[in-house]
Amino acid sequence: MAKYQRLVQQIQQQIEADVWPPGEKLPSLRQQVELSGLSLMTVMHAYEVLEGQGWIVSRPQSGYYVAPRARTLPPASHNPMELTEKVDINSAVFDVLQACRDPKIVPFGSAFPDPELFPQRQLMRSLISVSHSLKPSDAINNLPPGNEALRKTLAQRYAQQGITVSPDEIVITNGAMEALNLSLQAVTEPGDWVVVENPAFYGALQAIERLKLKAVAIATDVRDGIDLAQLEEALQRWPIKACWLMTNQQNPVGFTLSRERKQQVVDLLAAHQVALIEDDVYSELWFGEEKPLPAKAFDRDGNVFHCGSFSKNLVAGFRVGWVAAGRHAQRVQRLQLMSTISTSAPMQLAIADFLATRRYDAHLKRLRQTLERRKQLARQALRRALPAAHINESNGGYFLWVSLPETVDTRQLYQQALACGISIAPGHLFSSGEQYTHCFRFNAAWPWDNRAEAAVETLGKLIRQMTGD
Amino acid sequence: MAKYQRLVQQIQQQIEADVWPPGEKLPSLRQQVELSGLSLMTVMHAYEVLEGQGWIVSRPQSGYYVAPRARTLPPASHNPMELTEKVDINSAVFDVLQACRDPKIVPFGSAFPDPELFPQRQLMRSLISVSHSLKPSDAINNLPPGNEALRKTLAQRYAQQGITVSPDEIVITNGAMEALNLSLQAVTEPGDWVVVENPAFYGALQAIERLKLKAVAIATDVRDGIDLAQLEEALQRWPIKACWLMTNQQNPVGFTLSRERKQQVVDLLAAHQVALIEDDVYSELWFGEEKPLPAKAFDRDGNVFHCGSFSKNLVAGFRVGWVAAGRHAQRVQRLQLMSTISTSAPMQLAIADFLATRRYDAHLKRLRQTLERRKQLARQALRRALPAAHINESNGGYFLWVSLPETVDTRQLYQQALACGISIAPGHLFSSGEQYTHCFRFNAAWPWDNRAEAAVETLGKLIRQMTGD
Repeated sequence: MAKYQRLVQQIQQQIEADVWPPGEKLPSLRQQVELSGLSLMTVMHAYEVLEGQGWIVSRPQSGYYVAPRARTLPPASHNPMELTEKVDINSAVFDVLQACRDPKIVPFGSAFPDPELFPQRQLMRSLISVSHSLKPSDAINNLPPGNEALRKTLAQRYAQQGITVSPDEIVITNGAMEALNLSLQAVTEPGDWVVVENPAFYGALQAIERLKLKAVAIATDVRDGIDLAQLEEALQRWPIKACWLMTNQQNPVGFTLSRERKQQVVDLLAAHQVALIEDDVYSELWFGEEKPLPAKAFDRDGNVFHCGSFSKNLVAGFRVGWVAAGRHAQRVQRLQLMSTISTSAPMQLAIADFLATRRYDAHLKRLRQTLERRKQLARQALRRALPAAHINESNGGYFLWVSLPETVDTRQLYQQALACGISIAPGHLFSSGEQYTHCFRFNAAWPWDNRAEAAVETLGKLIRQMTGD
Repeated sequence: MAKYQRLVQQIQQQIEADVWPPGEKLPSLRQQVELSGLSLMTVMHAYEVLEGQGWIVSRPQSGYYVAPRARTLPPASHNPMELTEKVDINSAVFDVLQACRDPKIVPFGSAFPDPELFPQRQLMRSLISVSHSLKPSDAINNLPPGNEALRKTLAQRYAQQGITVSPDEIVITNGAMEALNLSLQAVTEPGDWVVVENPAFYGALQAIERLKLKAVAIATDVRDGIDLAQLEEALQRWPIKACWLMTNQQNPVGFTLSRERKQQVVDLLAAHQVALIEDDVYSELWFGEEKPLPAKAFDRDGNVFHCGSFSKNLVAGFRVGWVAAGRHAQRVQRLQLMSTISTSAPMQLAIADFLATRRYDAHLKRLRQTLERRKQLARQALRRALPAAHINESNGGYFLWVSLPETVDTRQLYQQALACGISIAPGHLFSSGEQYTHCFRFNAAWPWDNRAEAAVETLGKLIRQMTGD
């Protein structure tokens, strides 16, 4: 556990034990530095986290106070299951994606990280090196399951976390999006039921729509993730074929399932012989002391499809991802041959070449540090400009999940913000229901500059107009 | 029309007019050179073509004779329609593809052209140039519909043939396979009926299987292509949603639909408001005097999806293709965003860079000449080694469609040949019925060397063992 996390936990326990009752002023940052012996940066971070989780509030020019009602979280897993026979994420997703492509628009609604964070020069070097050595036979040699060196390196990275994945069960794909889609198709027929989270990555809802499946959307808690009781109930009541979850740095909310919860999910699904499609594209963007395990680590039957990608942490636009598909690997390969044939050979070779330079982990470390800093700056700015909002705390990734008072409709906010040159990702993109129309996802991966600062202030103004504050 | 073609036509007319009755000896090659004023090469080619089409037979040490029954083609479009509620091209296709990946196996069963025929050095140069100038924003700028320069160049190439296709209706895809699959999905729901050719490219049958569609397979004539009367009957009898055809150098048979037939197909489908999915991946591999038009040229309603690729004529393994999708372009873009997000940005940029060098047409001209020569050599060798076979004549591409006596089962031949280190593509891969189990597809794109020569002789021996000759 990181130092700031220990302080967070300590203060939480103190508040729960009424050492600091509601309304009480907490030790100032400087006092806390002296008390704890920690650095100012660490203490600031801990207070930020506590504020983000609703334990404390800051009053300008005064200090930090214990929040009036001990914790002011938005309603968690009290949402019922959502059953959807015909998923229809209509054109809203495409409109939002389209808006983010215009460089004049502030890209808070974007799904992509700032590509300037990627090791451009070293990737170029790899691509040039591959270009020089490209052989005519490379097209055939990199057909599914894909480049052998790349699959071996991926297997070794799993092994570093103590997970045994054979290179033979890995299939290289056109990004994680293809991996996820092929995995879902490998275990379903049109009309089948699939479990998703609520809210969920809209790609899961689109895949369900595209493959003509039906969705059971299970409530998720903003900190703990999927409601296990609801999941079990769904598995008992419907002939579920697959469950699509994000286990680490969930998009859009940000939670990371605990180790125990991951194991419970895998065991529960295994007991019902339901495949787990694990979307783990943010797995490298953790901020704690140790990389969280995937649920795949607890897979004993080869029934977990672990889908990963280089698009969020190394390079955008190469379109290289993979799935560790367990006993379904051959089926996935065949579906790939039938739908796109294979992932581009030079792109597979370039990634394999880069990974062989062993610069990947050093790059990832820098990337995580930058993202953590940017996220913190964005959170502070949002808190200043949007005092009525709840901003979910999460320990990784680059998304902030912002909950506004329920009277605010973020579909309207999206339109008004776009007219001001600002994009956001409104909550209804992430659900087939109506529970998140007062929320939006905020991309904090971009450099924090005057334009971003001004854009957040504009968002605050628009929201105040809507709430009448 | 090429010179040899004029001679072919002339002799065909003479045979039909009984100038040369069945059994009659034709002028020898040398005599024909004197008579026609053509080169020996041209006359040889014409006689080869006439022999391939069954008009004449050669007798060793003696010369060429008019065939006993004026033309001995295999039964053409007398096959009934094939209705298939559940297409299942099982594992045979994958086994055949897998066998072709082993460099020790003679790749007559391969679907790929010899990659040594591609302009390797110049492509490398384009890829290196792109690597140097790659920008972080390229990932976003090349999202669907794809690279703008590439779409403009494609639109200009259509314009050169007098076809108006806007860059806006073009979507760049992960090869033609993705283009075809997205197009088919854009106009169908699971359970819908789709028309395919019989025999057809197995990718069409796989796409139908993957998307849970039902197939009406229409008989095709080895020279004239799809049976229009059957097509019309099918359109009247079933609620057909799409028709997937290869219009030029059809895989596996090799025919190119005449201009008139293309227009008739487009008009017929338009009258029934059925989309045409035109698989035109061999469009650049024509051997005549003029590049054949696609059916897209006759599209007035934007209801033709014209799918093309660089994989068969420029570079394998880059996975860059496209579809000119008419009024369905936006739907295709969205399906792509939902299934693979986009085609790799550096691959799109590298192809665009290569096309801008204007070396493409010079390369294509050389490629066509080489393929025509190799195909001729392969045809001669097959004729020598497989005297009982009918080898379909076709004026482009690199496939030969070989029909053996009906007692031969090419599934068996495939197994026996593979045991001898030779792959072929047996006929049952190309049909959901049983009509083509005495046929196989032969890839003539590879250099004609001793290994190939010996392999064809081995095939001949295996076939003789099976027919008892």
